[in-house]
Amino acid sequence: MINFDELKKDFRAVREKSPLVHNITNYVAMNFSANALLAAGASPVMAHAADEVADMATIAGALVINIGTLDAGWVESMVIAGKAKHAQGGVIVLDPVGAGATAYRTKTAWRIIEECHPDIIRGNASEIMALLNADIKSKGVDSSCSSHDAVESAVKLAERTGAVVVISGETDYITDGKRIETISNGSPMMPYVTAMGCTASSMVGAFAAVNPSNLLEASLHAMALMGVAGEIAAAKSAGPGSLLTNFVDTLYNITEEELAETVRQ
Amino acid sequence: MINFDELKKDFRAVREKSPLVHNITNYVAMNFSANALLAAGASPVMAHAADEVADMATIAGALVINIGTLDAGWVESMVIAGKAKHAQGGVIVLDPVGAGATAYRTKTAWRIIEECHPDIIRGNASEIMALLNADIKSKGVDSSCSSHDAVESAVKLAERTGAVVVISGETDYITDGKRIETISNGSPMMPYVTAMGCTASSMVGAFAAVNPSNLLEASLHAMALMGVAGEIAAAKSAGPGSLLTNFVDTLYNITEEELAETVRQ
Amino acid sequence: MINFDELKKDFRAVREKSPLVHNITNYVAMNFSANALLAAGASPVMAHAADEVADMATIAGALVINIGTLDAGWVESMVIAGKAKHAQGGVIVLDPVGAGATAYRTKTAWRIIEECHPDIIRGNASEIMALLNADIKSKGVDSSCSSHDAVESAVKLAERTGAVVVISGETDYITDGKRIETISNGSPMMPYVTAMGCTASSMVGAFAAVNPSNLLEASLHAMALMGVAGEIAAAKSAGPGSLLTNFVDTLYNITEEELAETVRQ
Repeated sequence: MINFDELKKDFRAVREKSPLVHNITNYVAMNFSANALLAAGASPVMAHAADEVADMATIAGALVINIGTLDAGWVESMVIAGKAKHAQGGVIVLDPVGAGATAYRTKTAWRIIEECHPDIIRGNASEIMALLNADIKSKGVDSSCSSHDAVESAVKLAERTGAVVVISGETDYITDGKRIETISNGSPMMPYVTAMGCTASSMVGAFAAVNPSNLLEASLHAMALMGVAGEIAAAKSAGPGSLLTNFVDTLYNITEEELAETVRQ
Repeated sequence: MINFDELKKDFRAVREKSPLVHNITNYVAMNFSANALLAAGASPVMAHAADEVADMATIAGALVINIGTLDAGWVESMVIAGKAKHAQGGVIVLDPVGAGATAYRTKTAWRIIEECHPDIIRGNASEIMALLNADIKSKGVDSSCSSHDAVESAVKLAERTGAVVVISGETDYITDGKRIETISNGSPMMPYVTAMGCTASSMVGAFAAVNPSNLLEASLHAMALMGVAGEIAAAKSAGPGSLLTNFVDTLYNITEEELAETVRQ
Repeated sequence: MINFDELKKDFRAVREKSPLVHNITNYVAMNFSANALLAAGASPVMAHAADEVADMATIAGALVINIGTLDAGWVESMVIAGKAKHAQGGVIVLDPVGAGATAYRTKTAWRIIEECHPDIIRGNASEIMALLNADIKSKGVDSSCSSHDAVESAVKLAERTGAVVVISGETDYITDGKRIETISNGSPMMPYVTAMGCTASSMVGAFAAVNPSNLLEASLHAMALMGVAGEIAAAKSAGPGSLLTNFVDTLYNITEEELAETVRQ
């Protein structure tokens, strides 16, 4: 169950502490994720050079690794950054975009899991299932099944990796392998905004940076903000173009009280 | 002449089948093109790693190669993906962004034409003319002449390459070297939204994926949707910032009937 | 002091001559900066391939080098482009994004200064101070101090490099080491739109391209347009999402008279 006081406290901390979130993310998501993080109060930085990622990762409150437009050079940087962040004891979020769509993506996601030990893994249902089962085929980067179908896989992935696992979808599931929490906010229009999932991963990074001692709760709170802001914004939006704009505005304007009152588990 | 039933049928198929469109495109276009494809009903994926492009291209309904922010590594990936897609007999769209602006762009566009055999080539007037005539100078990536001036070049390029050639502009021209079709919708505000042309190429990919047996018609229908949606969106827009937003919303909301009623040849 | 006639003349020249601005900029900024330049009347091009940057830089009216998402390959291209542009006697703008956040960024900014001799350097207060003083720490890419704190550093940097130095912030400062000019327009919401500063650097490039003989004035006029457009747009905006859209619309619609009437020093 969500603790409303803790939810409000985490969101307040993001706004007050403005944690630096180091994103090694995909080209499609960069602008939108940066704007969403800024609107929520965090301080995003995008950096991928092998020459600086260890430095950047270790000054940041959290490192978010997203393989959406990976290639060999970027993967090396992801691993360098992830190892440095893990050695420091800091928080790493992995978004295994498109795992299952190509063998290269599945393999790379596992390489990052094994070498960097991410603390949180957030994906859609197809991606989470693909990480555990070669028989599931993602359709590109969009999920081909509902989040509910992936709950069992999420629990297993959490057990196997020690990470908190987050599945986004109609209902969001957040689990550490023992507890399973849910968020039921959002809008069917949200998947029509590209990189909404990637932005959720970055938001999880921001909340984890201010609440590193309880990553299940931090992830739950970040997904609560994403779902609530998406729901409020979609109600004002004629389509996914306006949703993108209204989503950023909502993150900027929403109060802690409005967040706590609107969230549904 | 446009067959309204076929136009509606193709658009319905994009929404119902949600074809996977693999884009190897430029950094400027990625977010907007992904949002436009999603809004129209297609499923975009961006992937450029040499390690996965052949796999991704061959599971996609169409491959769109756009050289807008090319470099040596990306060009190799474009060629790998294009060869794999061509070997499979699948559809390839080439957008020769900035052909004529630098020798490297013109040379690379021709390399892709010769090694990958694109089925459709879409560009602005300068780009299409530059592919046939070293004397035409593009000004960066914007066209320096009207689409009408490039019709003869488009016919020649279609004859020489076997591809359907699309020129975007005040009037769009679509030709297979024999027939020449036109779309007269759109708005003078559209060229002020960056990557509108790149997005047209990706949209052509989505329509070609659902109608691969008639690429002239598929291209015509995609350009009809772009022009009509741009025209409807521009009528509501105070400037190119709102046009971007309204264009995505319009793609999401427009009905087949509205599309067929608004299109002008 | 701002000369209103010269301000209007420069803005008119951007719209009438539509200067080609070659940006080697970061992935986060590319789409927004391109849209802002188009809306203001300029013609942006993004190109980073070692194989073409010298060609592109030398046909452009200005070269803008932005190290926001630098890596080894891109830095080589920046240096190739910068050397070619400098050899031609053309205008180079440097945006040292994140200087001070990592040693790699500070070192790269100085490498570009020494090898390419930028004519204009635009950054936030932290970045300008970091270029002169290893003790200042940027927090990622956001400034950790006010623009006023960096004026002395800006003057020193101008003296040392011969460049016009621009600090963006609550007040913008523009100096050639002798004169110090200011712009006091803008809105506290502007830093919540990612890449607003990067876009200012690109806008400075557009104005410098039409007024290369007076780079202090060109920079001042570009910052006037950025501040005034941001202020007008923010007054209509519910949050940073709408600000992004309204800012682009405002650049497209603002008249020379409105610009001159609204600017404050």
